[in-house]
Amino acid sequence: MTTIKEESSNKAFGGWQKVYSHDSKELGCHMKFGVFIPPQADSEQVPVVYWLSGLCCTEQNFITKSGSQQHAAKHGLLVVAPDTSPRGCNIEGEEDSWDFGTGAGFYVDATEEKWKTNYRMYSYVTKELPAVIAANFKVDSDKAGIMGHSMGGHGALICAFKNPGQYKSVSAFAPICNPVNCPWGVKAFTGYLGADNKDAWKTYDACDLAKNYNGPPLEVMVDQGKADNFLTQGQLLPDNLVAACANGGVPIVMRMDEDYDHSYYFISSFIGDHFDHHAKFLKD
Amino acid sequence: MTTIKEESSNKAFGGWQKVYSHDSKELGCHMKFGVFIPPQADSEQVPVVYWLSGLCCTEQNFITKSGSQQHAAKHGLLVVAPDTSPRGCNIEGEEDSWDFGTGAGFYVDATEEKWKTNYRMYSYVTKELPAVIAANFKVDSDKAGIMGHSMGGHGALICAFKNPGQYKSVSAFAPICNPVNCPWGVKAFTGYLGADNKDAWKTYDACDLAKNYNGPPLEVMVDQGKADNFLTQGQLLPDNLVAACANGGVPIVMRMDEDYDHSYYFISSFIGDHFDHHAKFLKD
Repeated sequence: MTTIKEESSNKAFGGWQKVYSHDSKELGCHMKFGVFIPPQADSEQVPVVYWLSGLCCTEQNFITKSGSQQHAAKHGLLVVAPDTSPRGCNIEGEEDSWDFGTGAGFYVDATEEKWKTNYRMYSYVTKELPAVIAANFKVDSDKAGIMGHSMGGHGALICAFKNPGQYKSVSAFAPICNPVNCPWGVKAFTGYLGADNKDAWKTYDACDLAKNYNGPPLEVMVDQGKADNFLTQGQLLPDNLVAACANGGVPIVMRMDEDYDHSYYFISSFIGDHFDHHAKFLKD
Repeated sequence: MTTIKEESSNKAFGGWQKVYSHDSKELGCHMKFGVFIPPQADSEQVPVVYWLSGLCCTEQNFITKSGSQQHAAKHGLLVVAPDTSPRGCNIEGEEDSWDFGTGAGFYVDATEEKWKTNYRMYSYVTKELPAVIAANFKVDSDKAGIMGHSMGGHGALICAFKNPGQYKSVSAFAPICNPVNCPWGVKAFTGYLGADNKDAWKTYDACDLAKNYNGPPLEVMVDQGKADNFLTQGQLLPDNLVAACANGGVPIVMRMDEDYDHSYYFISSFIGDHFDHHAKFLKD
């Protein structure tokens, strides 16, 4: 079993916001992840919610800026916030772009030669990390939810759609809804999965997955700021997700939030509603 | 009247978190400050609360990490968060220490030759900035409160004690309560006010000021983490403030918070209580 090392520990809202590191087998490197341990975990097994961050983020952004701890403490949810890519693997070109390579793992398992050994964030998030959490924390692993922002919103949606039943709840902030049809997604999937491998691309596209979803009921909640530059630039494509969910019979609430942008100010404003959403499915 | 320039603007909790810059006359340099404008300010003059940050902070730390906006929005309070020192004044030695010079103005008006032209944070915070706020925002300047953290907790306390009536409410997180008796304070006051000028030191010492406070009733609220390293190191000296307040007839609630440290995780855990405290005096 993986050994985890405590990197930091801060009391917050009656619980503990911690950061751990461990050697990841999937990623072949040392990784950090944040864990908020709610006060309820002192006496009972608690549900777990995974948070997947966006481009350029580390495990720090969410835990310092989202204001999530108060809501996790209120509902008694353990919250896990991993980093967004492998780090320091010395792959040529890894540091060249802000939207590819380091800080931009896109929650896929790469198949291209150069990236396939380390860039396995999909398996890391859906298999290795849950096993690490189950082994080290007082959680009820049958009760798991997943949420994320931007690239991490894409990650949360595909993890939920691809693993029916593993996540009882899913939500996203300004997710990249249809990566096969936006510049960020095309760049990432070309690099990690190969330019010609379009069938593989689809297996990581939330719209394609929603359209073909076949599993236990899953209610999707999304917040999208109307003043988000990346919305205007066509990186997020929320309408495509709404249409795909309708097509696949997946209920979705897509809230379009006047004047809100892509920042953590936006996230913090609505994170309480998202925790309420997850608690509804995880605390029954 | 000073012209202010909007540097950033983010919708948050129904209001706007903004950052402005302006040329400060008191400090002789260009300064930034954060302003949270609550939704209530669309239709009415709102009270204003000043937040003073600690060592090494800029205007960013509080606005990104404290989770303050939700509470300011709830109570309808405009929140002003200035930087912690003049910047870029090209004073020799300004950048040499993390606890003196840049990022460490200590909210005093320096009298030592080298610093006295620019390091006038006391006058900046208590006079120039309130005038800028009154001229540019829909505030009721008669209803002002002040709070802060660490060095900024010291700042909040001395601003309130030295200007009876100007601030209707005051609170602090882990304040440097008795700077004349702790290493940080001795270093700062020696540098800014002169080693031999002990009478001047006292005029910026919260304990001395509390003991001799003579003004309208002022209820002080303080949170202090019991696992705060700087408490152990004797930098904060909360007991001395409690004694001084008793001496001067100033009511104080000093909460000692088990397991909490000096970080923004600590601040965010209790900032809601502090806003409740300020609202009690500012919203009547």
